[in-house]
Parts: sequence; C-alpha cells; structure tokens
Amino acid sequence: MNIPEYMLRIGKQARSAAKVLARSHTGIKNYALEAIAQQLEQQHDQLLTANAKDLEAGKAKGLEPALLDRLALNDSRIANMIDGLKQMIILADPIGEITDLNYRPSGIQVGKMRVPLGVVGIIYESRPNVTADAAGLCLKSGNATILRGGSEAINSNQAIARCIYAGLKVAELPSTVVQVIETTDRAAVYELLQMPKYVDVIIPRGGKGLIERISKEARIPIIKHLDGICHVYIDDEANFSKAIDVAYNAKTQRYGTCNTMETLLVAQSIAAQVLPPLANKYIEAGVELRGCTATREVLPNIKAATNEDWETEYLAAILSIRIVADLDEALDHIHQYSSQHTDSIITENWSRARRFLAEVDSSSVMVNTSTRFADGFEYGLGAEIGISTDKFHARGPVGLEGLTSQKYVVLGDGHIRK
Amino acid sequence: MNIPEYMLRIGKQARSAAKVLARSHTGIKNYALEAIAQQLEQQHDQLLTANAKDLEAGKAKGLEPALLDRLALNDSRIANMIDGLKQMIILADPIGEITDLNYRPSGIQVGKMRVPLGVVGIIYESRPNVTADAAGLCLKSGNATILRGGSEAINSNQAIARCIYAGLKVAELPSTVVQVIETTDRAAVYELLQMPKYVDVIIPRGGKGLIERISKEARIPIIKHLDGICHVYIDDEANFSKAIDVAYNAKTQRYGTCNTMETLLVAQSIAAQVLPPLANKYIEAGVELRGCTATREVLPNIKAATNEDWETEYLAAILSIRIVADLDEALDHIHQYSSQHTDSIITENWSRARRFLAEVDSSSVMVNTSTRFADGFEYGLGAEIGISTDKFHARGPVGLEGLTSQKYVVLGDGHIRK
Repeated sequence: MNIPEYMLRIGKQARSAAKVLARSHTGIKNYALEAIAQQLEQQHDQLLTANAKDLEAGKAKGLEPALLDRLALNDSRIANMIDGLKQMIILADPIGEITDLNYRPSGIQVGKMRVPLGVVGIIYESRPNVTADAAGLCLKSGNATILRGGSEAINSNQAIARCIYAGLKVAELPSTVVQVIETTDRAAVYELLQMPKYVDVIIPRGGKGLIERISKEARIPIIKHLDGICHVYIDDEANFSKAIDVAYNAKTQRYGTCNTMETLLVAQSIAAQVLPPLANKYIEAGVELRGCTATREVLPNIKAATNEDWETEYLAAILSIRIVADLDEALDHIHQYSSQHTDSIITENWSRARRFLAEVDSSSVMVNTSTRFADGFEYGLGAEIGISTDKFHARGPVGLEGLTSQKYVVLGDGHIRK
Repeated sequence: MNIPEYMLRIGKQARSAAKVLARSHTGIKNYALEAIAQQLEQQHDQLLTANAKDLEAGKAKGLEPALLDRLALNDSRIANMIDGLKQMIILADPIGEITDLNYRPSGIQVGKMRVPLGVVGIIYESRPNVTADAAGLCLKSGNATILRGGSEAINSNQAIARCIYAGLKVAELPSTVVQVIETTDRAAVYELLQMPKYVDVIIPRGGKGLIERISKEARIPIIKHLDGICHVYIDDEANFSKAIDVAYNAKTQRYGTCNTMETLLVAQSIAAQVLPPLANKYIEAGVELRGCTATREVLPNIKAATNEDWETEYLAAILSIRIVADLDEALDHIHQYSSQHTDSIITENWSRARRFLAEVDSSSVMVNTSTRFADGFEYGLGAEIGISTDKFHARGPVGLEGLTSQKYVVLGDGHIRK
C-alpha cells in the first residue's frame, strides 16, 4: 500500500463527506446513529469473532493483562457501545443553533450560528469501543471523522467500522462520513498529521507518550489531554467530616483516572486533627502515603515525599501529602505543581472559596467537591470525546460543543455601510 | 544582543506578569488603560519626534508612499489611539464571568468561568497605532502581551511603549504586562514562535506573506487572517433597488479592505435587468469590470474574466462578475472560490435565504447586507484585534472574548462521587 496516496484519498473523501454531513439535518443524523446501533446488535457475533482474533494475536505477542482487558469486547461492552449511540440520539443537535442575535445601531441583526469544525481525526490506543463512541459524537456534531485505532485492535475496529458503514448507508449518508484507517502502518498517522487542508483538528486519546509524539509532529490543531496532577486543599475553616469524605473519595474512588487526586494539601493549624483519621482510612484502603517533613511529624510512620512526588501523576494507590501554612502557600504549591487539570478547596470560608475559584488556573476548579467529578457525563455534556488540558478552543471535558465552531450571521433588508 | 536569551527573558517575564494581571480586578485594569491614555496625551510631542525619525529613515530607504502613510503619526492618529483606549474602559470586563451554572443530578453545581488565555504575542507590520490598540485589548482581557512591530516603525513603537510602561507603573501593575520587543532582528520573531511554554497564542496582523511565514514556523496556536475573497449573490427574487445598493456599497465603500466584495454572482434570469444599471454605477466610480462569457453578452464592453480572477483578492477597484443559473450554481461557485471570509445573498425568498445561511461555510454569512459590515465595531464587539479566517477557537472578528478561554467551576457542599 502506498501510504501517502492512501491517506490523501482518505483526507479528500473526508472533506467532501463533511460538506454533505454539514447540510444533513438532525433527523438524518439521528437515523444514522440508530441504524449504526442496530448494525452493532445484528453483527454482535461477528464483532466477538473479530475481537477474538485480536485477543489471540495479543496473547501471542505477550501483551500485558491490563492491555488485553482494555482490548476485550464482550456482551456488556457491546451493549454499552449501543447504549452510548442511543444516548447521543437524545442529545440536542448543536449545529445550526443561533445565539446572541441582536440589532445593531446600523439596523443589521448580528448573531452567531454553531457549525461543525469539518473533519476530525482521532488517534487512540487499544479500546475498540472508542471507534463507535467517537464516530457517534462526530456524526451528531456534523463532523466527518478519520479514526486510527491501536494496531492490536485492528480486527475489532474494522468489524465495528463495517457496522458504521452499513448504518450510514441505511441513512443514505456517504459511508466516508466515518473512515477507519485500514492499515496499522505508523506512517499513516504521520500523514494524517500533515493534512491541514483536509483535517481540521486531531484528538489523540491515550497515554502521555502518544500525545507528546503527536503534538510534536502535527501541523494541525490538537485538542490534547496531558497529565492530571490534581490537588485537594483542606483549609483550616473546612468542615472536617466533609473534608475527610471528599479527600478520601478524590483518591480512592478510582486510582487510574486523570481526575484522581495525587497530592493532598492541609492547613497547618488543623493538620493534627484531620490527618490521623484520614490517614487511617487511606491505609485501610491500601493507599501508600508519602509526606513532607511536617506531615511526618503528625504521621510518623509514612514515607518521606521528595520533590519528584509533587510532580508525579501516580495513577495508582499512592498519595503525597504536604502541610502548608495557609491558602497562599496552598496556591503557590498548586501554581507550581498542578497540571492545570482539576483542583479543589475544602472550606466553609466564603472569601477563600472565592479566591480559590478566581486564582487557580485549571480546567476545573472546585469548592467542597471531589475532583473525581471532573467528567463530561457528570458535567451534563451527555458524552465526552476527551478532556482538554489546553486553553485554546476547548478546555476541560469536551462534548459535542467542543467539536463545533461558530460563524456570524448578519441579517438585513438592503443595509449598506455608510 | 543574544536574541534567544533576550526572548527567553521576555517570555518568562510575560508568563509571570500574566499571573499578576489575571488576578487584577476590573478597576485596576481600567485605571491602567486611563493612565496609558494620559501618558499618550502628555508625551504627544515625543511621539511625533520619534515618528519623524522613522519617516525620515523610511524615505531614505525609499519606502512606498502607501507604506509611509501607514507609518505616519499625526495629531488625529494619536487622538484615535487615546480614544480607542478610553472606549476599552467602557467595555464590560469578560474575565470572571460565570455562565451556565446549573445543578446536576449528583447535587454539584457546574458552570463556566471566563479566564484570560495568558500570554498573547502579536506580530504586525508598519502601523504604530497597533501597539497601543493591541496592548489595550490584551490588558482589558487580562492577557500579558509581547508586541513585535515592523522594523520601520521601531522608534514610534518604542515611544508608545514608554507611554504604556509609565501608565502600567501608575496603576501599580508590572511594566512587563506589556513588552514591546526592542530589536528589529528577525531572529526575535522566530524565537517568539518557538516558546509554547511562555506564549499561548500568536496573532499576526499583516499581509498574506507574513501570515503564511508565521504559520509555517510557529509551534504555538495562531489566530490567523488570510484572504478575503468575498461574494455577493443577487438572486432572481432580489429586490432590484436593494440589490444594486448593496452590491455597489460592498465593492466601492472601500477597496483595500478584506471584507470588500471581489466577485459578484448574478442569477441568469435577471442579469439583463440588474447588470446594466449597476455596471454604469461601477464604471462611474472607476471600477474595472471583468466578466464571464454570459456577463459579456449583457455588458459587451468589459474585459473577460479568467479562472484566476475568481481566485483573486484584488484589494483594488476591480470586480469580477459571473452569471449563474440559480442558487445551487451560486453555492457551488462560493464553495469553490470563497476564502470563507464573508459572503452575502440578496433575495426576498425566505427559503433561499435560509439555505444560504445554513450552507455557506464562511466566518460571516449575510442576507440582504453589504459585506463591508463584517467588522468588530459593526458587530458590537467594541474593539477588534483581528479577523480570524480559522474555525478553531475564534472565527470572524475577534474582540475581547476571542482572547479568553473558559474553565469549569464546580461548587458543592462535601459532595463525593458514588
């Protein structure tokens, strides 16, 4: 296969399918989502057969159990894909929405109309469900999609792709509205990143290594999601019982997610009261604690935290703890070490809550709430294509709206500029 | 001067000034704008002296009259800069605005808070007034700014910079909130484009050559403004008198602006009625007309348009005219040749107006209105840092809001995720 030629064809087809999709009204898009869901139901057995091939090849290649688990499809995961598509049908169509339509002194009316970005490229790792989820979200938001999944999931992804193409056909949309790249050659990714003429945005979903590599190579805007080094600060005017509940939940509700707390900051004057009961709960849950010198005076049995700890996204049952003098010192620590993903303050003090909200420059800033809430579904976006740690275009959880842009609409009655 | 070291210092200073500015409330920012305006008034003579140096050097270098004109400061241009800053004081502060704060089923409240982008780099050509305008807009939107003007305006820009620094000092803000690069070495621009750690967005203002060069070199998001190949389509159900007024205004109100019409499309069945009186008006105004074969049957004395004409942003008293069968053919022409800046339909037909609004993918789409309205002031943005021909982040005229991002704020009362 000539990869540059193949990708150029994919790109051109996507651009022209995007034009058709942009003109397709809500009913057609919903019908396509419904038809794809139906195909996934009907081709349930073929999906499992294709997935079994990937799993077998993965085992033969010696993939780790965690990776094999992410790769695996089963009845409930297929049902989840189908459910996800059906939920997208219910979501309001963002495209065509006109807002802020106001009269200007000249007599013209000026407003903004929401439009698709155009062509979205998604590069992801082993989970095959992303193929259906991402295709559905892009379809609903009027964008053509080019999908490139992990090479270990190639058979599963192609089987899901066949369901998508068949569903699009039923809805009389071009099958090129969604294109799943058929080659596992890494050169295809490189080509995809070099086509600003045909691709409007790239969304990488995967580990930090993947995202950094893509950022370096891309000549196209990226919605990227790097680390989640999230903080909870327990202020000296916190309600202790709430503080303990939130700090416990933020670390232990799930360990491997980006919105999990990695560092706990505690105000000095209350550390001796709050930390011992909280530490007991963590230790009971199997969390390894690492503390600054002051923390280890309160909790003498824990390991010392080094500077490296403040900079680490553990994604594991490890928590670093630092005692700070006050809110100012907490803010200094957050400004220095936070990855600007999600940070939360626990306090009953109105003015400090207000300062924290204004001064912490993270994609989610919280008061008296677990960082684990930083999520598209919890925020009511209906679905999530990723979480952006950028400030440009989209920030935080990205739903349908993050896949759109706005154009100005100007209405007049023969108005001319004087 | 060691350029990489110098620019690195500029970048670091901007990043740390941005943190101070992000925390500064509306009153302080307005006070700084007022103080800068005052300094421009007080240093009026020094501004003219510095500008005279630039003009002299420019003449000696043999700069074209048009360029020298853009470079020149005089009483009214200085007054305009001062007025511009004063108008920014009146604009609502976008920073800190919280929207869409809603309760979720979990009990948390989720909303969005508007925040500055951080550090904005602006690269522009000869007009020195951009130094004050851009600094003011970035200041009001809470962004630190690094400004790099044209080398021919170096003395004028440094004189304006001194007013800005003095004004910032009066308001007790760091003078590094605005930094005007002191060297004309082109290597400084290159360095500026390589600092994603210290610069969040680059806004190039100038000709297509400048913008393409910057796009190629930048490792930072760009809000870019390429061509304005704008169209007016006169539908067969247009009100003829309005059509003639709008089409005349869209071409002749100013020739050199990006929102000026470059190609007029006319429905076949009415061409013989509309084109002759309109052509007379154009010819009287000194506009050179170039037409397709069908147009030249109606207007036999005009030049033939070539394919190149449809692709050209004349920025001059030249207009290409094409007769199309109907709306579909007009849309095809626009999809192929429009630079997606601004396009307008003239029609009294409701359904065609609605189709044009939905299907034309340009930053401004208009009905019965002159393309010349595509402008931040006309749209009520209060001020304009540029017009974006991108879809990502900001599209069309960019005012204060385009210089901001939004973070999620999440409010709870000890809420944890179940």
